[in-house]
Amino acid sequence: MTRSLRRIDGFDVVAFDADDTLWRSEDSFAHAEHRFHELVTPYAPPGVDVDAALRATEHADLSISGYGVKAFTLSMVRAAVTVTDGAVPANVIGELVEIGRAMLTEQVHLLPHVPEVLAAVSAHTRVILITKGDLVHQTRKVTTSGIEHHFSDIEIVLEKDPDVYRRILDRLGVAPARFCMIGNSVRSDVLPVLAIGGHAVHVPYHVTWVHERVDDHDEDVVELASLADVPMWLGLVDFTSDVAG
Amino acid sequence: MTRSLRRIDGFDVVAFDADDTLWRSEDSFAHAEHRFHELVTPYAPPGVDVDAALRATEHADLSISGYGVKAFTLSMVRAAVTVTDGAVPANVIGELVEIGRAMLTEQVHLLPHVPEVLAAVSAHTRVILITKGDLVHQTRKVTTSGIEHHFSDIEIVLEKDPDVYRRILDRLGVAPARFCMIGNSVRSDVLPVLAIGGHAVHVPYHVTWVHERVDDHDEDVVELASLADVPMWLGLVDFTSDVAG
Repeated sequence: MTRSLRRIDGFDVVAFDADDTLWRSEDSFAHAEHRFHELVTPYAPPGVDVDAALRATEHADLSISGYGVKAFTLSMVRAAVTVTDGAVPANVIGELVEIGRAMLTEQVHLLPHVPEVLAAVSAHTRVILITKGDLVHQTRKVTTSGIEHHFSDIEIVLEKDPDVYRRILDRLGVAPARFCMIGNSVRSDVLPVLAIGGHAVHVPYHVTWVHERVDDHDEDVVELASLADVPMWLGLVDFTSDVAG
Repeated sequence: MTRSLRRIDGFDVVAFDADDTLWRSEDSFAHAEHRFHELVTPYAPPGVDVDAALRATEHADLSISGYGVKAFTLSMVRAAVTVTDGAVPANVIGELVEIGRAMLTEQVHLLPHVPEVLAAVSAHTRVILITKGDLVHQTRKVTTSGIEHHFSDIEIVLEKDPDVYRRILDRLGVAPARFCMIGNSVRSDVLPVLAIGGHAVHVPYHVTWVHERVDDHDEDVVELASLADVPMWLGLVDFTSDVAG
């Protein structure tokens, strides 16, 4: 009974996170932070840590503005004004706003293996996308990514907590035990799904936003080195024949 | 057969728009535009129309940033830098950003009769909310409005066009002919719903954002003077007995 060995037969829905799971995201933020540092430092009092000021502003703005590039751009502008005590010239602020606009329109860079993995998984089960962030930006990325057709549903949510996952599964009519989430954030993609009795797979990205880091938890987390390992983990590749030779 | 006279029996779902249908929205934008004018005019070249510059910037940014307060705030910042050719001081930009933050956190002001109307309609049929705008801001308004419990579903969408309405109705499993949308925008709440064979009611607000105005269309639009007229239009008030006296 090879079929019963296939983990995917235990799932009615497999969900993928988007940013830094299917396409690059954190790199653009890191680049923007670097430019912020270069542009704003000359106008800040000597010895002031403009990077820390930006992080603190972002953190303070999160509950008001939420996730995403527009919120981040507004935090950059606010931090630039505050950390320089109003000394930053308007043209520098104009550049910060342009950095945000460029992020909103830049091309989607898919991570390696994404199209093949989605094709393999969606051929066997219902595949959905669950992402946080800005409605207009995430929608633009999905529709220009060339992978939209693999997803039966696209959920752009405010926060990824157990309640939000429960609501999505209720709407889809799927039991948590028959659901598997795949993503790069232990905090957002793994722990809340395990908390409601679902399954989750962690596929780390080389950069993790400080806000998404979790240092200690008691859960046993399935971690795969690459998205390319997902089909095999799901039992979609008959690797036993290769091994048996 | 009084029952058959009740229009609401013909609907499986009645949907309400939110901004300027259930609560005030455009007034805050008008106030912000007024402050923009006051704050930026002193730094603009004489005779330059800063209001027109803001409107043009907003329009140009719409396809990139979408609807909502964060997009609007970024447009204010960008317009302030551009229209003053970089002469606007950072502290003025800081004030523009604060205006946006205040808009994101200000209390929801429900329009007259909203709680009673929602109570009356939701007692007889499924009621949902369909709104454009910013995910975090609209969610905050819904959850702090005190009327969230009347809605079985809350749809925050990027654009209100026939495709979006069709997708929502598909997901709810409702035929367009059994659906009625109520809102203040002919462009967003009425015409696209009629286009897919649904029903719609226009309840005008005293201010209409220029982007939402439509000057000519061939549709016969049901228009009610006040949200308070909705239950009667739906046949929920047995006014025949009053008339018969």
